[in-house]
Amino acid sequence: MRIRVVLSRPSHPGNIGAAARAMKTMGFADLALVQPREFPHAEATALAAGAADLLDTARVHPSLDAALADCIVAAGLSARRRELTHPPQTLRDAAPELAAIATSQGRVALVFGNETSGLSNEELARCQRFVTIPANPAYSSLNLAAAVQVACYELAVAAASFDAPRATAREAATGEDVSRLCEELERVAVDSGYLDPAQPGRFMQRIRRLLARAGLEREEVKILRGFLGALAKKKL
Amino acid sequence: MRIRVVLSRPSHPGNIGAAARAMKTMGFADLALVQPREFPHAEATALAAGAADLLDTARVHPSLDAALADCIVAAGLSARRRELTHPPQTLRDAAPELAAIATSQGRVALVFGNETSGLSNEELARCQRFVTIPANPAYSSLNLAAAVQVACYELAVAAASFDAPRATAREAATGEDVSRLCEELERVAVDSGYLDPAQPGRFMQRIRRLLARAGLEREEVKILRGFLGALAKKKL
Repeated sequence: MRIRVVLSRPSHPGNIGAAARAMKTMGFADLALVQPREFPHAEATALAAGAADLLDTARVHPSLDAALADCIVAAGLSARRRELTHPPQTLRDAAPELAAIATSQGRVALVFGNETSGLSNEELARCQRFVTIPANPAYSSLNLAAAVQVACYELAVAAASFDAPRATAREAATGEDVSRLCEELERVAVDSGYLDPAQPGRFMQRIRRLLARAGLEREEVKILRGFLGALAKKKL
Repeated sequence: MRIRVVLSRPSHPGNIGAAARAMKTMGFADLALVQPREFPHAEATALAAGAADLLDTARVHPSLDAALADCIVAAGLSARRRELTHPPQTLRDAAPELAAIATSQGRVALVFGNETSGLSNEELARCQRFVTIPANPAYSSLNLAAAVQVACYELAVAAASFDAPRATAREAATGEDVSRLCEELERVAVDSGYLDPAQPGRFMQRIRRLLARAGLEREEVKILRGFLGALAKKKL
């Protein structure tokens, strides 16, 4: 997936580093900087943490046009609403198409503006898409690197870049395992005097429902039966 | 939506502030801290930016149990895979259920571990859900506040907390507007000698297809017709 993150006129070198880290966690490596105020910078390197390699290969451009020269689609990320621009899409809505283009057609740029002023109208006019991250109208000011993180995350999810986590292989308990456990539990409940076999009520029914919901593992049944066995031996 | 963000044993006060900012941009305000190394702290306040009010109301707890006391579900966010825990869900898969519970049943906690070590097995055992943010296997280390941003964003999107952006009202061009534009364009193309009326080929067909794709506005048609009118007057 050919995705380039373009930071236009970033003021704080720390944000450049944090953006690089955000990109790398989502599997992206192509970082372009347009007129950064300070770069390279020790703070950028510090905040990049394990993604300092992205700073080494980042390209610095004199203009947004130069940064977008080899991209076929540029998506401007902006919280602000503007006149005279393309209709905005939410990031969630835009991500599948952007991922598809970046996978099969050509390079796609995600363009982020200055920390304070955002993308200018001139910058946004160079983008084919206007993408917003829905946010609290009372405080919509995402940190620059946080916006990069969310955008890269959406692209990675849309492209199914990473495997969903798999549960550690576990052996589920069988019906027989659970039945035996319930029999032993009932015996202990009766022996302890808690359960009256003449008037058992719904005690075991509720226990069975609870155990069914829990989705027991074989190992757990073994542990519980061991515990019940110890109680039974005590001749409660 | 009753969502609490719980940061367990955070090392860096700056991350606490950045997490508060991330929360507030997504409309959340309930921040709990378990044994923070340093709090309150000037760096937390600086990085909270316009979300310093969340730090003022944040509660500091001596244990994770205390932070979760009034929550009905706790979701532990962790990139690491573990033995002996609940099967992991991706954040995307988990968000709708968590949002639904937080909207209609009771308080839901999103629990984040220490920056370096993540959630311990003991901490995770206190959570009813194990939620992962899919990430680059070669570098899965999201910054703490970046993880909070992504998780809060997913919850806000799942709950449709914020309106999708609306396009500025625009008047679309009618079929007649576009037909007139095409007629004038064709005339200029012929007058200029570019288009041979005897052998027009597919020029106008391609132009019409392009204009249809662009979805012209009435104002744009007006501007283009003005331009064509000026060209026509020049007697090209």
